[in-house]
Amino acid sequence: MSTADRRERLGRLIAEQGADALYVGDLVNVRYLTGFTGSNGAVLVFADGSAVFFTDGRYRDQAAQELPDVEHVITRHLLDEARGRARGLLLAETHVLSVDAWRRLGEPVSSGRLVERLREVKDDGEIESLRRACAVSAEALEQLLDGRLVGRTERELARELEDRMFRLGAQDKAFDTILAAGENSAIPHHHPTDRIVERGDLLKIDFGALVDGYHADCTRTVVLGKAADWQREIYTAVREAQAAGLERLRAGVPVAESYTAATTSLDAAGWLAAFTTGLGHGVGLQIHEDPFIGAAHPGRLTRRTVLTMEPGIYLPGRGGVRIEDTVVVTDAAPEVLTTTAKDLMEIA
Amino acid sequence: MSTADRRERLGRLIAEQGADALYVGDLVNVRYLTGFTGSNGAVLVFADGSAVFFTDGRYRDQAAQELPDVEHVITRHLLDEARGRARGLLLAETHVLSVDAWRRLGEPVSSGRLVERLREVKDDGEIESLRRACAVSAEALEQLLDGRLVGRTERELARELEDRMFRLGAQDKAFDTILAAGENSAIPHHHPTDRIVERGDLLKIDFGALVDGYHADCTRTVVLGKAADWQREIYTAVREAQAAGLERLRAGVPVAESYTAATTSLDAAGWLAAFTTGLGHGVGLQIHEDPFIGAAHPGRLTRRTVLTMEPGIYLPGRGGVRIEDTVVVTDAAPEVLTTTAKDLMEIA
Repeated sequence: MSTADRRERLGRLIAEQGADALYVGDLVNVRYLTGFTGSNGAVLVFADGSAVFFTDGRYRDQAAQELPDVEHVITRHLLDEARGRARGLLLAETHVLSVDAWRRLGEPVSSGRLVERLREVKDDGEIESLRRACAVSAEALEQLLDGRLVGRTERELARELEDRMFRLGAQDKAFDTILAAGENSAIPHHHPTDRIVERGDLLKIDFGALVDGYHADCTRTVVLGKAADWQREIYTAVREAQAAGLERLRAGVPVAESYTAATTSLDAAGWLAAFTTGLGHGVGLQIHEDPFIGAAHPGRLTRRTVLTMEPGIYLPGRGGVRIEDTVVVTDAAPEVLTTTAKDLMEIA
Repeated sequence: MSTADRRERLGRLIAEQGADALYVGDLVNVRYLTGFTGSNGAVLVFADGSAVFFTDGRYRDQAAQELPDVEHVITRHLLDEARGRARGLLLAETHVLSVDAWRRLGEPVSSGRLVERLREVKDDGEIESLRRACAVSAEALEQLLDGRLVGRTERELARELEDRMFRLGAQDKAFDTILAAGENSAIPHHHPTDRIVERGDLLKIDFGALVDGYHADCTRTVVLGKAADWQREIYTAVREAQAAGLERLRAGVPVAESYTAATTSLDAAGWLAAFTTGLGHGVGLQIHEDPFIGAAHPGRLTRRTVLTMEPGIYLPGRGGVRIEDTVVVTDAAPEVLTTTAKDLMEIA
């Protein structure tokens, strides 16, 4: 789908609200609607799908290249210029727009999360970018796990994994790699330290590549050497919970059902209290985006939504396991983009 | 200075506005005031310097570790909890707070950029972190320039520079490295490509290390081989403009004077029209922060403000030169933290 198609679809949602235009200043939403990748820009999208783009002089050439099909206004006063262009009722993204900017725009009406709603359903190009980001991630992890792990620090290994993603074609890491050994694996969002990976450790690796602006998100947990009974037990419980959650990720099913399925599985195994994070989230131009999987989510899943499913068990002072995939919702079982194996790996 | 000292100073500014408390939700400002490094948190600072910190359950342990001296409230409803704690007039950072969050807080009064103003003047610990970030950057650049450059791609060289910073102790790069060869050096904010560096190229490298959350910002431009006359001419003009600008960076002098000094120098050399970016900015917990050097800045410089000075000449299709340092304002000449030499380097 072209960015013009996206603007046209957005225009229809603007018209439904009886408005003339939406001011979009959130840079991720601006990128989605126009392709612009600079650090200062905004777009006014009208109910008929037409648009005007605003940026400053630094981005004159870049805007001409990235947005050949949209009128540009080069200005240091984006808000004032945008306000001057709106004719009838103006909407704005009050969930992200600052109060000062909103006042400068003349206190427009809240649009709600219109662009985020469009972004929930990925088009072919987006899915292809996510597929490549996940493929690079899987390949890099495989390379890392083929090498020496014991005796090296969390920090070194995290860096090596990021470096391998880069060499495989990632433009960057999708987020700061979480690589946590032994008792550190019990910390859901651990920052890699100089702790040395040792035989007997659980090693939890939450990472991903960035490709074309799209984020991969994958977690695998392995054991260095032979798994202890308790390690195998929590691994199995997480794996089963993930399978239960994935089974309910399909088009037409309420979002909340996958939450219930995964947590019911953890509860049956006796480990629900040790699951202390979110279960999953949309992923795309942002590493965390709509929809967020939870018991209270009121909506149903749609084809082409890309989500993570990441149950975990975290035992403070001992260790933890998380298994996470990035998947595409379909009419049947979700397509798993992060293809690394999920059988418990015991790495000598 | 401890974060408690910072909160006490902020408390006095809050009292000066006749208010009871300031809601701080901007994560950089939250970190400055509390030391918290997580991704969801807010702090309510009272006029007497006391404070309450709000975060969600994911950060319970981290908050206990990072903020031992502040009361914590663990909640999924930060805004509602904070609103409930404010007794008298509440202030908020309406330049960054979203409209929806502001409404949820009961539409508090604008504080202006109070925390940003405090952050302009660095304490000993901050300057030490910036000094280390700049030292790592300078060492990494020296290592890169000692190796082979010709025949390698911009992308490879940028990655090697980042890798060297990491090995020297950086927690990360401070921002995406700009490494631009030949005609690409004329693009102020170029993203590294697969263009191969060749003899005769200008090579512009704008980069920095992140240490303890503090950002280094440095640009050097070198020539591969013997400089052509036009390359030497624009290099000399930029170097002289930078010296002129740095000369006016001292405590008590109007911020605008350094802008005038640098641009007058470029104008005298006949190159002012080719200078198309900002001249300099504060640097600290953010790569770009107050103050921004410009002709219209109404204030004066203060000791311990850390700034960049980065004039440039950009000739589309041919090449460009930028020279940038991170410096500390003192009562005399600024202390230059990015110590790499600035004589024109012709690298064989």
